[in-house]
Amino acid sequence: QGILERLDAGEIVIGDGGFVFALEKRGYVKAGPWTPEATVEHPEAVRQLHREFLRAGANVLQTFTFYASEDKLENRGNYVAEKISCQKVNEAACDIAREVANEGDALVAGGVSQTPSYLSCKDKTEVKAAFRQQLDVFMKKNVDFLIAEYFEHVEEAVWAVEVLKESGKPVAATMCIGPEGDMHGVSPGQCAVQLVKAGAAIVGVNCHFDPETSLETVRLMKEGLQAAKLKAHLMSQPLAFHTPDCGKQGFIDLPEFPFGLEPRILTRWDIQKYARKAYDLGIRFIGGCCGFEPYHIRAIAEELAPERGFLPEASEKHGSWGDNLSMHTKPWVRARARKEYWENLKPASGRPYCPSMSKPDGWGVTKGAKELMQQKEATTEQQLKELFQKKK
Amino acid sequence: QGILERLDAGEIVIGDGGFVFALEKRGYVKAGPWTPEATVEHPEAVRQLHREFLRAGANVLQTFTFYASEDKLENRGNYVAEKISCQKVNEAACDIAREVANEGDALVAGGVSQTPSYLSCKDKTEVKAAFRQQLDVFMKKNVDFLIAEYFEHVEEAVWAVEVLKESGKPVAATMCIGPEGDMHGVSPGQCAVQLVKAGAAIVGVNCHFDPETSLETVRLMKEGLQAAKLKAHLMSQPLAFHTPDCGKQGFIDLPEFPFGLEPRILTRWDIQKYARKAYDLGIRFIGGCCGFEPYHIRAIAEELAPERGFLPEASEKHGSWGDNLSMHTKPWVRARARKEYWENLKPASGRPYCPSMSKPDGWGVTKGAKELMQQKEATTEQQLKELFQKKK
Amino acid sequence: QGILERLDAGEIVIGDGGFVFALEKRGYVKAGPWTPEATVEHPEAVRQLHREFLRAGANVLQTFTFYASEDKLENRGNYVAEKISCQKVNEAACDIAREVANEGDALVAGGVSQTPSYLSCKDKTEVKAAFRQQLDVFMKKNVDFLIAEYFEHVEEAVWAVEVLKESGKPVAATMCIGPEGDMHGVSPGQCAVQLVKAGAAIVGVNCHFDPETSLETVRLMKEGLQAAKLKAHLMSQPLAFHTPDCGKQGFIDLPEFPFGLEPRILTRWDIQKYARKAYDLGIRFIGGCCGFEPYHIRAIAEELAPERGFLPEASEKHGSWGDNLSMHTKPWVRARARKEYWENLKPASGRPYCPSMSKPDGWGVTKGAKELMQQKEATTEQQLKELFQKKK
Amino acid sequence: QGILERLDAGEIVIGDGGFVFALEKRGYVKAGPWTPEATVEHPEAVRQLHREFLRAGANVLQTFTFYASEDKLENRGNYVAEKISCQKVNEAACDIAREVANEGDALVAGGVSQTPSYLSCKDKTEVKAAFRQQLDVFMKKNVDFLIAEYFEHVEEAVWAVEVLKESGKPVAATMCIGPEGDMHGVSPGQCAVQLVKAGAAIVGVNCHFDPETSLETVRLMKEGLQAAKLKAHLMSQPLAFHTPDCGKQGFIDLPEFPFGLEPRILTRWDIQKYARKAYDLGIRFIGGCCGFEPYHIRAIAEELAPERGFLPEASEKHGSWGDNLSMHTKPWVRARARKEYWENLKPASGRPYCPSMSKPDGWGVTKGAKELMQQKEATTEQQLKELFQKKK
Repeated sequence: QGILERLDAGEIVIGDGGFVFALEKRGYVKAGPWTPEATVEHPEAVRQLHREFLRAGANVLQTFTFYASEDKLENRGNYVAEKISCQKVNEAACDIAREVANEGDALVAGGVSQTPSYLSCKDKTEVKAAFRQQLDVFMKKNVDFLIAEYFEHVEEAVWAVEVLKESGKPVAATMCIGPEGDMHGVSPGQCAVQLVKAGAAIVGVNCHFDPETSLETVRLMKEGLQAAKLKAHLMSQPLAFHTPDCGKQGFIDLPEFPFGLEPRILTRWDIQKYARKAYDLGIRFIGGCCGFEPYHIRAIAEELAPERGFLPEASEKHGSWGDNLSMHTKPWVRARARKEYWENLKPASGRPYCPSMSKPDGWGVTKGAKELMQQKEATTEQQLKELFQKKK
Repeated sequence: QGILERLDAGEIVIGDGGFVFALEKRGYVKAGPWTPEATVEHPEAVRQLHREFLRAGANVLQTFTFYASEDKLENRGNYVAEKISCQKVNEAACDIAREVANEGDALVAGGVSQTPSYLSCKDKTEVKAAFRQQLDVFMKKNVDFLIAEYFEHVEEAVWAVEVLKESGKPVAATMCIGPEGDMHGVSPGQCAVQLVKAGAAIVGVNCHFDPETSLETVRLMKEGLQAAKLKAHLMSQPLAFHTPDCGKQGFIDLPEFPFGLEPRILTRWDIQKYARKAYDLGIRFIGGCCGFEPYHIRAIAEELAPERGFLPEASEKHGSWGDNLSMHTKPWVRARARKEYWENLKPASGRPYCPSMSKPDGWGVTKGAKELMQQKEATTEQQLKELFQKKK
Repeated sequence: QGILERLDAGEIVIGDGGFVFALEKRGYVKAGPWTPEATVEHPEAVRQLHREFLRAGANVLQTFTFYASEDKLENRGNYVAEKISCQKVNEAACDIAREVANEGDALVAGGVSQTPSYLSCKDKTEVKAAFRQQLDVFMKKNVDFLIAEYFEHVEEAVWAVEVLKESGKPVAATMCIGPEGDMHGVSPGQCAVQLVKAGAAIVGVNCHFDPETSLETVRLMKEGLQAAKLKAHLMSQPLAFHTPDCGKQGFIDLPEFPFGLEPRILTRWDIQKYARKAYDLGIRFIGGCCGFEPYHIRAIAEELAPERGFLPEASEKHGSWGDNLSMHTKPWVRARARKEYWENLKPASGRPYCPSMSKPDGWGVTKGAKELMQQKEATTEQQLKELFQKKK
Repeated sequence: QGILERLDAGEIVIGDGGFVFALEKRGYVKAGPWTPEATVEHPEAVRQLHREFLRAGANVLQTFTFYASEDKLENRGNYVAEKISCQKVNEAACDIAREVANEGDALVAGGVSQTPSYLSCKDKTEVKAAFRQQLDVFMKKNVDFLIAEYFEHVEEAVWAVEVLKESGKPVAATMCIGPEGDMHGVSPGQCAVQLVKAGAAIVGVNCHFDPETSLETVRLMKEGLQAAKLKAHLMSQPLAFHTPDCGKQGFIDLPEFPFGLEPRILTRWDIQKYARKAYDLGIRFIGGCCGFEPYHIRAIAEELAPERGFLPEASEKHGSWGDNLSMHTKPWVRARARKEYWENLKPASGRPYCPSMSKPDGWGVTKGAKELMQQKEATTEQQLKELFQKKK
């Protein structure tokens, strides 16, 4: 059954987790460019991660094609082995996802994301061509449906949806925005309306913010759609990092991004709260983005097992709410084998010299901007000026 | 070259990371029993993790035979598929480790760890038989050397070393103790002396405590050996969790163990500090235990690259000290592409409602003990009484 | 010169600090009732606190008549010695304030605050009578101007202003609300408009929230007045406690209120930031409420000394930005004798087992409400039901 | 009855709180020099603080003669009005203390503290002469007993005790040290032994560390005395600041000293725990030092009211364990009117951008030392060198 048949029937569809962060920690993706050439270089590593998400309960395997548009791969050319073409990366991604999907009951979704072309002000034709190039591969490999994800500008997201719609396959679209809306100030509600009008059957958010913030954004999208009398399925794939201190542009501006985010990682119990809250909000396509490891996806599947009627395969290796601790030799560890314990635990950081929140960097931080100019004069000053002017 | 040739030549040997925690998060190991039947059930997952540690720079691949003694596997029989024999688990572990070791320049180490037999007061003969059963497999599969690890009682560790020494292969021995010593109050210095006298050529600590605490324990071991005029190589494989608030029995007593430890996870920069400090202390076998993911092992290899003269394979996907951020579009993210930034960052937890330290559970916590009795009367009360009496 | 002459001339007027909290810590006021019978019982203690605020730079001494309406004093009759009449308390307060004001250059302001009569739904006539009773004393003692402060409901505040205006003296009015407005949902802007229309020449906020939150509320009041084309002077007298975690009803709902607020106390440097920000916002009557000790008021005077051209008397015993540390014997303490040091210090709490933020109690907290019912069934259940219904 | 009669009879004697910190906040003492010229300049302020401590339950009023030796006052001559002689300051201090002591049942204790003469290596004769000059005043004014307090070097403390013993009055002696001992490495136990041998009938610690640390120090003193078969009464007057992160030299090295200590202030409930623990340890002279306000002293008296059989005067304005909240209009505030609530509360700091612990400055902090040299080259470098050499 296709994605829309499932969602229309009221099923809960569980998405997968974050590839670039997980594979960075495993040694296959470089932070900074975040490009997916591992599909060609180390297919076994990509395959294994897909498999873990599948076992954890994912019903959708997204092709590992994040940032795999030709302009992005070229842009990061010094990182990616020159002989790996954009097409190869995308094809390998499709093959691996399909191979693993066939091991279980999962759909394959071909994914496109925002392009450097858009940010460097190239025109609509050029940007659309980049998406179309990836789409050609997805059609050749016959993915089950398509996702346009990780867009900060609704205009570009709409272009992506328009291209993907040409395929005739169902299209989902998620933006990496918070409740304040996209980078041009378009509200979440308006973003959702534009995406649905462009042809997206599923809309929502991914990345950049923690579950709490992301669900608030989806709530605003839902309100916008209702006000516009439009119908669409809702979807959320947030970070698995706590980011209450984020500004408008999300976790990238946090001083800890991307190499000091560990203390913010969500526990499995945090994820269960997220899954429940997402469900209660009416979201039926529930997954994760950066920071989501297989056990986080499993936590979604376990929280919603009562509604779905089954547990994922990986739950063979996990007791609900810690009940596998009931055999521990220490009585106080056995006493942790219960829901109430983990639900109420306020986990300590073990870092008494660290704060609990950070001030995000960025344009509001004049002093930081000045220091940056001093540090990297030649390359930055002009750019800073331009950006400051743009901001005004 | 064997482990001792390398260490005797002054080489730095990098160990691997923690299997049970990493595979628990990937969905292949059950927290509580923590047994390694995945070697038979899902060899591809075990193989992939070995491979990631190898790429990250590990020179030693430990067979995934933690808690794989027959008495432990039986004890946890309701978890492990009945038809998977102890022997099969150990054999598969050796085969997988060797297969991956051959992909690079790594040694295979067969490992044994503490047994339930010892804790239930069985006698020396019986405990030694359990170790010998595993050793038989290691000999048949011809591992390169042997490690006795994760012992809370030096007496049992000595028995393990005695058995492993029968093989004629080099033996390393690590205990999961802190500066206060083993569970019978034997000091780290005395533990080291007994282990070396029993035949261990390498001694140190693993698990239970964070790097700072573990290095203090190894320092005390070193002092003990010096005082006794004994020579041995030093080894450390600590947790990748911050545990400044631990009591004598380590992180198991922390309220966050094992499902709420996320905020305590060390960053790669924390690991680099550990690697440097371990090196300065004279430790030359430097690895990790629970919480260590491949990128943590890579951080050891990167910190010590100046001394070793080379970087690990996985550093192709990692810029030293974040230098791969220098191409980021945001100037304030580019400004993070430098050592000074990451060295001085105090990462926030994003958890303003959580404390930074926890009070460990355990015998000192009378109130907790009482509550435990109320919760689990039948099974616990008698045991509590006995344990309390023992404690007196 | 009167208060309005000063403000009209563009002068900065510094208010005093919080009497009930300061005198509670000194042993003269009871937390809970918070009534000011100390004016009769221990005039020397009240006089000394007035004097300290005067020395610290206060230009206005408020009579210590908080909660000194007859209905409140009766209501708390079991606390206040029966023979101390409402009139005596108010008269003594005026005498003490005047006596100290004459020691320097300060105005005396007679103050009224919200009444139990209003909350128990008594009518306008009755509530106004309570204010008038206090006003009679203020007129007899010839205070310089009047302040209606600590009102959660703008309706009652308007009644108070109407009564005070009968005197012909200048009237200031402050509400203890945050950016969400009063307890009936009237926005800060609307509150300000109503108060000015009722006759207040000075409007603003006091108590319940920290400076940052309070200044945001005053900003909204300012916007409301501008939109309505009304003119008034602005005033702020916030808490000297950090309360970023407050809900709509302010610090009373924080679990730490009133006996565990210590870790939230503002430093003198926090106050200097507040004073500067208040000034930049156009506020010219700048003081404090609960938590403000004399040194906090001095910090306002020191921050604004460049604008005012003079320092307060108590600055004889205080070096600007810690410069009195320059003679310390330890060089690292001498190094603290500079503005940059104190401006950037992030002070530690010394409390590693405590969180940085709290969840406020209150109506949102269903579980808390349930527990409360269980604890105090007879008296609370009915009341809880009614209150919950009211809330709906 | 004198101090020794009371202690010998088993009475609990409650000391007073910290004058220099309290009067600094009130505007009468300058941080840095910390000298007590307020006894002459503003006797009403000193008198009022004495009175508040008396009302709070103090049985001992210490003359406000801290740092009032002639060499110290001269040393800080630019701060103290030139015409105020050392003698005048000491005499006024005695007069004020006696006046207030007569308002209740309190003893007056004349106090001396460490001198700059000792630190600048002047000889025993000169240092003793400084103490004798103060003692002359105490004898003339006929104080009830004498306290030598705030000594970092036991040698100087012994000299002080020897001088004070000449008077024939009872002598108490407290050092501002932690469990590591005095600045020359003399252990707490040895310090206590030397002080008792010199003639002190009461020994203990004051200042520099929080109650928990200070009680550990007194415990070590007690052990030292027992081992030496000496008898003395025990006394503790710690900080009212949490300082778990202090190094050997106490809170002065904390980055927050002295103007950012607010988040560390103890609550009244923290104090009650201290009082109980001190009592259980056998200490019978229980008071406070810097940070102790009148309500902290009252908390000692309230905690020990069951043993003493009465409450202090100021408890008329304080309900035990918050019971005065039982009349609050909000049920969740009423629910705080109980011991269990306040005993278990982990108070939040409201400072999510601040850490919970600080690294102390000082000789261990090489980088800090370097920076200091750069900042204050001329004056500091030579001194730094000398001090570093001294340290070696």
